[in-house]
Amino acid sequence: MKRRSFITKSYLALGLSLVGLPSLQAGFLQSKKPAVNSKRIEDRINELAKFGRDANGHGYRIAFTPGDVEGRAWFADLMRKAKLEVSIDEAGNIVGKRKGKNSLLKPICFGSHIDMVPDGGNYDGAVGSVGALEIIETLNENNIITNHPLEVLIFCDEEGGTVGSKALAGELDAAGLNIVSQSGLSISEGIKAIGGKPDQIKNCIRKKGDIHAFIELHIEQGGILESEGLQIGVVEGIVGIVHWDVTVDGFANHAGTTPMNMRQDALLAASKLIVAVNDAVKSVPGNQVGTIGKISVQPGAYNVIPGKVMLGLEIRDLSSEKIESLFKEIERRAATIAADSKTKISFERKANANVPAMTDKRLQQVVDKSAKALGLKTKFMQSGAGHDSQEIAFIAPVAMIFIPSVGGISHSPKEFSKPEDMANGTNVLLQTILAIDGDKN
Amino acid sequence: MKRRSFITKSYLALGLSLVGLPSLQAGFLQSKKPAVNSKRIEDRINELAKFGRDANGHGYRIAFTPGDVEGRAWFADLMRKAKLEVSIDEAGNIVGKRKGKNSLLKPICFGSHIDMVPDGGNYDGAVGSVGALEIIETLNENNIITNHPLEVLIFCDEEGGTVGSKALAGELDAAGLNIVSQSGLSISEGIKAIGGKPDQIKNCIRKKGDIHAFIELHIEQGGILESEGLQIGVVEGIVGIVHWDVTVDGFANHAGTTPMNMRQDALLAASKLIVAVNDAVKSVPGNQVGTIGKISVQPGAYNVIPGKVMLGLEIRDLSSEKIESLFKEIERRAATIAADSKTKISFERKANANVPAMTDKRLQQVVDKSAKALGLKTKFMQSGAGHDSQEIAFIAPVAMIFIPSVGGISHSPKEFSKPEDMANGTNVLLQTILAIDGDKN
Repeated sequence: MKRRSFITKSYLALGLSLVGLPSLQAGFLQSKKPAVNSKRIEDRINELAKFGRDANGHGYRIAFTPGDVEGRAWFADLMRKAKLEVSIDEAGNIVGKRKGKNSLLKPICFGSHIDMVPDGGNYDGAVGSVGALEIIETLNENNIITNHPLEVLIFCDEEGGTVGSKALAGELDAAGLNIVSQSGLSISEGIKAIGGKPDQIKNCIRKKGDIHAFIELHIEQGGILESEGLQIGVVEGIVGIVHWDVTVDGFANHAGTTPMNMRQDALLAASKLIVAVNDAVKSVPGNQVGTIGKISVQPGAYNVIPGKVMLGLEIRDLSSEKIESLFKEIERRAATIAADSKTKISFERKANANVPAMTDKRLQQVVDKSAKALGLKTKFMQSGAGHDSQEIAFIAPVAMIFIPSVGGISHSPKEFSKPEDMANGTNVLLQTILAIDGDKN
Repeated sequence: MKRRSFITKSYLALGLSLVGLPSLQAGFLQSKKPAVNSKRIEDRINELAKFGRDANGHGYRIAFTPGDVEGRAWFADLMRKAKLEVSIDEAGNIVGKRKGKNSLLKPICFGSHIDMVPDGGNYDGAVGSVGALEIIETLNENNIITNHPLEVLIFCDEEGGTVGSKALAGELDAAGLNIVSQSGLSISEGIKAIGGKPDQIKNCIRKKGDIHAFIELHIEQGGILESEGLQIGVVEGIVGIVHWDVTVDGFANHAGTTPMNMRQDALLAASKLIVAVNDAVKSVPGNQVGTIGKISVQPGAYNVIPGKVMLGLEIRDLSSEKIESLFKEIERRAATIAADSKTKISFERKANANVPAMTDKRLQQVVDKSAKALGLKTKFMQSGAGHDSQEIAFIAPVAMIFIPSVGGISHSPKEFSKPEDMANGTNVLLQTILAIDGDKN
């Protein structure tokens, strides 16, 4: 009861601030707002989780594997039952179209992906996919026809490198099609296996202006919303990612006969560097993250002082400039460590860097206001993970809506988001769509 | 010239201090001292190096392999040519006997090993073996018959775990014989291949009192003598060695979405531990060494915060008590790191610990005085590496003589000791033998 009265008050606030958005204002006047079905969302999340699940209950719905193929077929069937006009595009993306009142307007698109990492979770991608379908169900049940055409987009192989969305944005080239995916098939073979046409991949490309907006609902995959007691993250952008291979060259020697002060211990120097990377990343304000997740040592025996250590360094931030300045600071600290330890530390930048992708500032405001109008507490935040939205951001205004991940856990069987949070996020997605449906272009 | 006059002066000093050593005093009265042939030592080191050498010039004279078998045959032949009575004992050790004036006296033994680690050096073991043979050649050339019988001992498979010396000391059991050596053969099969009789292994055992003294000349394998400008190391003992497996349990999570302050990074905690181990080992005076030479991480990807790290820790010292107190200090520091980083750090002691082995205090003095009498600068030091002497120390008074290793490098093709240092060490060995040959028992 308390909740409802609060929401009623919020409607007024939203009404005052969103002058110029006719559809939503019409909703206010009716004093009744379409709402998604929380139980249906939860049930479908649990149904989808069965595809690709092994005997131990762990999920392996990796793109192009049987679990993915069967899950997609089940999902496309639900889309058809919801009266979407369903097709598979050349890249293997599932496209579900719903006509709007004005066929001259560009479509409002929303969706996510249903593939997962090996031994992954049941919410990453799934919430945005099931949520997108839930929008259609809710509009159907409330007899709402939007002005803009709508499209549910279920992208192929997000976890293997945002493959389907990359293709849609015209960024998937022949080299990308030849990469061997985790299924064992090449991307090209995989796309064929799910009904796409990799040799005509260019036909699926959407040009700038083809899409009115793309909105993706997703789990946060981190623990910020939960720890701050918030319900909705308004994503400002998706971080850029740069990887480096780091080599520390010392001198392998007898661990028994070489005194402590005569060593050139590559692992000791590498350890100081790992601590220094952590310190450097935390030395400036902001949400940047830096991680050393890989390490190997040569020769690697109890009784030999390590001669060589290889590390994998990753830095992520919304600003490429900040990534570069952090890396410069790490290089500076590494030079000191190398000099002190008589080792050599070298960095090799990997070619697979992702540039940061910003979401649309106006859409951020619409998401924020839609959420607040529903009585939900929000936070403007970055996405530390990559998403299909980062590809679509090249060709269309993009928004992302985050909901809390319990314990901040992701890419794990322990990944979990509460049914009420999934419903909240889907309701924000619905209100955002309805709000921008008033746009004249 | 300068050298000779200095040595002459030194004879007097030695004469004054070694009252009660008749043979050596006889030498003084003659004012002429037998000296080894530096060129012959160098040539034989270079000849021995050819056995087991590959096409790229790297050495693989691993015990029981063709290089070892052929090298042993060549060496035993040289021993026979030097009029030693040569036999292979049940453990595959080459034993070369030379009669003394008094057959009731126990033998003075000396020697080392000629097997090597894979891609090893040409001086580890070889200097002590060639040096032992050089003693016989020099005695022959100077027509010296000692009071005590002499025995040159070339131990089998030192690098695989001091196998031959362990057998001699009665410490090689059935389990030890079944271990698969680096040759691919079991120790038992290997011993058979070099002419031993593993099924009668007990027949080679020497009891306490059977050996008057065992003296081993060896390269230092560290850089202390060279860096301090010294020629001879008087070994006080061979360090004990304890190994631990260390596990750091953190929590694997997404490296993009998990803020820096919400991580349980096992590799960051392990890095702090590696630095702490180094600090703890250096926090007390002494020659103790502590090394982390092994590390592995799970899951080990650029974009995943490390969830688990495994380390290999080794501590060596002449005192078992010091090893234990250092380990306690490391455990204390680990507990703090674990609490601060929200990780769990656990230690598992390995079963293969070596206890420290002390050399004989009187023999240390004889070695030191013999060296000083030759004008050589000495240092009392520990052996950080294991040696056959540590096994023989269980059954006989033992001495070890170290000579400098250039650059402190060992177990490497870069291992090198200068001809003059090899000659110095062999002369010290000779004078030590002659000095204790005056012992009445």
